Amino acid sequence: MYRDRVRLPSLLDKVMTADQAAALIQDGMTVGMSGFTRAGEAKAVPEALARLAKKHPLKISLMTGASLGNDLDKQLTEAGVLARRMPFQVDSTLRKAINAGEVMFIDQHLSETVEQLRNHQLKLPDIAVIEATAITEQGHIVPTTSVGNSASFAIFAKQVIVEINLAHHTNLEGLHDIYIPTYRPTRTPIPLTKVDDRIGSTAIPIPPEKIVAIVVNNQPDSPSTVLPPDDETQAIADHLIAFFKREVDAGRMAKNLAPLQAGIGSIANAVMCGLIESPFEDLTMYSEVLQDSTFDLIDAGKLRFASGSSITLSTRRNADVFDHLERYKDKLVLRPQEISNHPEVVRRLGIIGINTALEFDIYGNVNSTHVGGTKMMNGIGGSGDFARNAHLAIFVTKSIAKGGNISSVVPMVSHVDHTEHDVDILVTEQGLADLRGLAPRERAKVIIENCVHPSYREALTQYFEKACAHGGHTPHILRDALSWHINLEERGHMLAAS
Amino acid sequence: MYRDRVRLPSLLDKVMTADQAAALIQDGMTVGMSGFTRAGEAKAVPEALARLAKKHPLKISLMTGASLGNDLDKQLTEAGVLARRMPFQVDSTLRKAINAGEVMFIDQHLSETVEQLRNHQLKLPDIAVIEATAITEQGHIVPTTSVGNSASFAIFAKQVIVEINLAHHTNLEGLHDIYIPTYRPTRTPIPLTKVDDRIGSTAIPIPPEKIVAIVVNNQPDSPSTVLPPDDETQAIADHLIAFFKREVDAGRMAKNLAPLQAGIGSIANAVMCGLIESPFEDLTMYSEVLQDSTFDLIDAGKLRFASGSSITLSTRRNADVFDHLERYKDKLVLRPQEISNHPEVVRRLGIIGINTALEFDIYGNVNSTHVGGTKMMNGIGGSGDFARNAHLAIFVTKSIAKGGNISSVVPMVSHVDHTEHDVDILVTEQGLADLRGLAPRERAKVIIENCVHPSYREALTQYFEKACAHGGHTPHILRDALSWHINLEERGHMLAAS
Repeated sequence: MYRDRVRLPSLLDKVMTADQAAALIQDGMTVGMSGFTRAGEAKAVPEALARLAKKHPLKISLMTGASLGNDLDKQLTEAGVLARRMPFQVDSTLRKAINAGEVMFIDQHLSETVEQLRNHQLKLPDIAVIEATAITEQGHIVPTTSVGNSASFAIFAKQVIVEINLAHHTNLEGLHDIYIPTYRPTRTPIPLTKVDDRIGSTAIPIPPEKIVAIVVNNQPDSPSTVLPPDDETQAIADHLIAFFKREVDAGRMAKNLAPLQAGIGSIANAVMCGLIESPFEDLTMYSEVLQDSTFDLIDAGKLRFASGSSITLSTRRNADVFDHLERYKDKLVLRPQEISNHPEVVRRLGIIGINTALEFDIYGNVNSTHVGGTKMMNGIGGSGDFARNAHLAIFVTKSIAKGGNISSVVPMVSHVDHTEHDVDILVTEQGLADLRGLAPRERAKVIIENCVHPSYREALTQYFEKACAHGGHTPHILRDALSWHINLEERGHMLAAS
Repeated sequence: MYRDRVRLPSLLDKVMTADQAAALIQDGMTVGMSGFTRAGEAKAVPEALARLAKKHPLKISLMTGASLGNDLDKQLTEAGVLARRMPFQVDSTLRKAINAGEVMFIDQHLSETVEQLRNHQLKLPDIAVIEATAITEQGHIVPTTSVGNSASFAIFAKQVIVEINLAHHTNLEGLHDIYIPTYRPTRTPIPLTKVDDRIGSTAIPIPPEKIVAIVVNNQPDSPSTVLPPDDETQAIADHLIAFFKREVDAGRMAKNLAPLQAGIGSIANAVMCGLIESPFEDLTMYSEVLQDSTFDLIDAGKLRFASGSSITLSTRRNADVFDHLERYKDKLVLRPQEISNHPEVVRRLGIIGINTALEFDIYGNVNSTHVGGTKMMNGIGGSGDFARNAHLAIFVTKSIAKGGNISSVVPMVSHVDHTEHDVDILVTEQGLADLRGLAPRERAKVIIENCVHPSYREALTQYFEKACAHGGHTPHILRDALSWHINLEERGHMLAAS
């Protein structure tokens, strides 16, 4: 069956086992693998690599699009394969190794990794491992459920291993739009002015002689772990939709809003689901990952077109989307993450960017990555690519966590990923803070009034008032600024008496 | 003489005194004024406004390009005129009022102010006050030594006051390139692919009937206060030039480097001066402000072309540049700050961005704005516009300040303007830290080894080692993280014994 998918016959003699292909990866190599938001990752070769490394230890620097599914980061970590990892991950075993200083993790804006490779500021991959639906008559690679950084990895690497995955339908071909910016100093504008523009090719164009191995596999993507909306995420969606209505009524947005971006995860997915019952029509998405909500919105006749870099679905939606892709195919495109997240395009289109915060402070600085200012959660992902240049940079979170021991709104964030310059709107289940055009002291009042859980409101008001008495454009009491985090670490509750 | 400069005769009856024009500005108005890095600001009308306000109190929201010269922010602050101010300032009197919470200051990325106006996310100016070299036959406004936000302010405002300033030579006409992005959702790419491309008009196109007043003035721009290089700034320049040489030798940059951006101020100016003695030729600039060093580099035959949004010169250079502008005119262009700082163009061209830090931490987070985490200095300016999308995001500072009481390298910055994701290179007179592709723990070692003043090195090493023992991707001891700033505030030295 795989023979139909390798349409350049001269490549058929490159078919080998995963173990044989994995043996091409040697100690000290930099390896670029497909995979973005647990979609479309090469599966058999990294698994084989983990097996091999248990017998013959080796270390590599691994770069991907974003997170991998099928517990691959776990397997590779446990086998001791990962010396360095970039630009994103979501695996709990790898996270532990990162926080123990055992794996060097480089947390990057997702649009920037291949730009830095192109300029030789990062070491180019020696070898790329790319999951494919098919190889064309020209020897070009048709990706599967994600594009991520696969195209540039394959272009930059000296050698390419292709995993033909029979678990993916051949109907994926035609979904992708591969556009690679030209080299500086003669780079030209990215010719994309509408979410549904197609500006590239449907396969990754590389010289077929770079393909040194083809591995046949039949293992599906991991299902999305997104949770259904709950009362809090529904309340967040309701606040945001009410805000969108006010923006439309005030003439600041069109009735079909602006192209929507939603970060991965349950809260952003719930917000998008909330749009099904909204009055908005003819919506579009220009996002990274297309989740269940994207297809629910299309089915509801609300969403006209969705551009992303990957499709990550729950078990509930997986079969009926991919078994009936013809229903959706003219409404979808998958792009390299450099393009789905490109600041040039984000600013041009005027995206509404909706991303999840771990915590934010009374002045609107957002921490997306570090628990207690030290421990990496997942990484900044694409949130910075979108927030900086968005028409509206929106961050959402529940106001409390760990049964109320943690307030997501704090005096000073313990780590900053997005500065107050880049944050327009904050939403919790308590309400929405519109920070546009406000100075820090004004921001604090709006945030405390609208976003903070009642059990923390008085303490935060007290902090702010004490800080204002002390003075400054952004008033703080440095001795107290991180005390909530210290309380949590030492006593288990942010307001524990010291 | 001014009659030659108002080339649409029907506008001549709009000539009036500054007091008459200032009286058009009423309490509660939003006013957009020309002026960027103390160049090309309207002078007579704001001075008149300050005089009038002492008799008849009024408050306005004032937006400019960036900083104003001629003590205008001081005069307006003292007269109590400023309720709100954006997006940048450098005045010590205004700074005090901001830090006392008396003036609401909105500190913005300089490329973003007019984008937010265009989308009605900020209140549009009721009136614009624009300094001009001339008014054309069509009634269009020819700016003077800066473009800043003048074009969009004039386009958005209902009424425009023009200050014809006879102190500026008429030879400035032709220097400007006014390009305004189209409205979303039909915005097209900015058609600029080289630093010397001209993509717009030489004057600000507005309907002449919007010009409600013309004031004639003869007051020069304030001279630049830039200091000549000293031993430390020279050492910073030397480290950076040695680094550029290594980049060229490694094939990562062309021999003429990449378009250079240098923030305002003595350190960035010294770095640019250092290039005069360097081996690099055929250099270009794509920057905000063109300072003395720009013209010194042109005179030395090193700089081929400079694009900026303003020209701010010292007394030493002012006359010989503007009296002989024909020498330079084919090597210069002044653009709206939205275009000089636009992320789309910065990413496309691959700028080398050199900006000044107030302080940075061992992980490479940069504070550009807030002394002690609370007190506003000037504002973020364009540093974020450039750093996020630059080919190289470089931040420079002296390693100590206040006679050694302050280390510019600290365990944790007290305020974050640029996150570690956006910072490639840090330079002090001690040395240069190349952070590209490094994880936080690796960054800390490189920064401590290369950038820290010897009198702080041991203490910072101890902090880092203690933090690593505690663990985390970005190790910190929250109880100690801000202790250096607290020591400084309470005891006058960052390492004062507690």
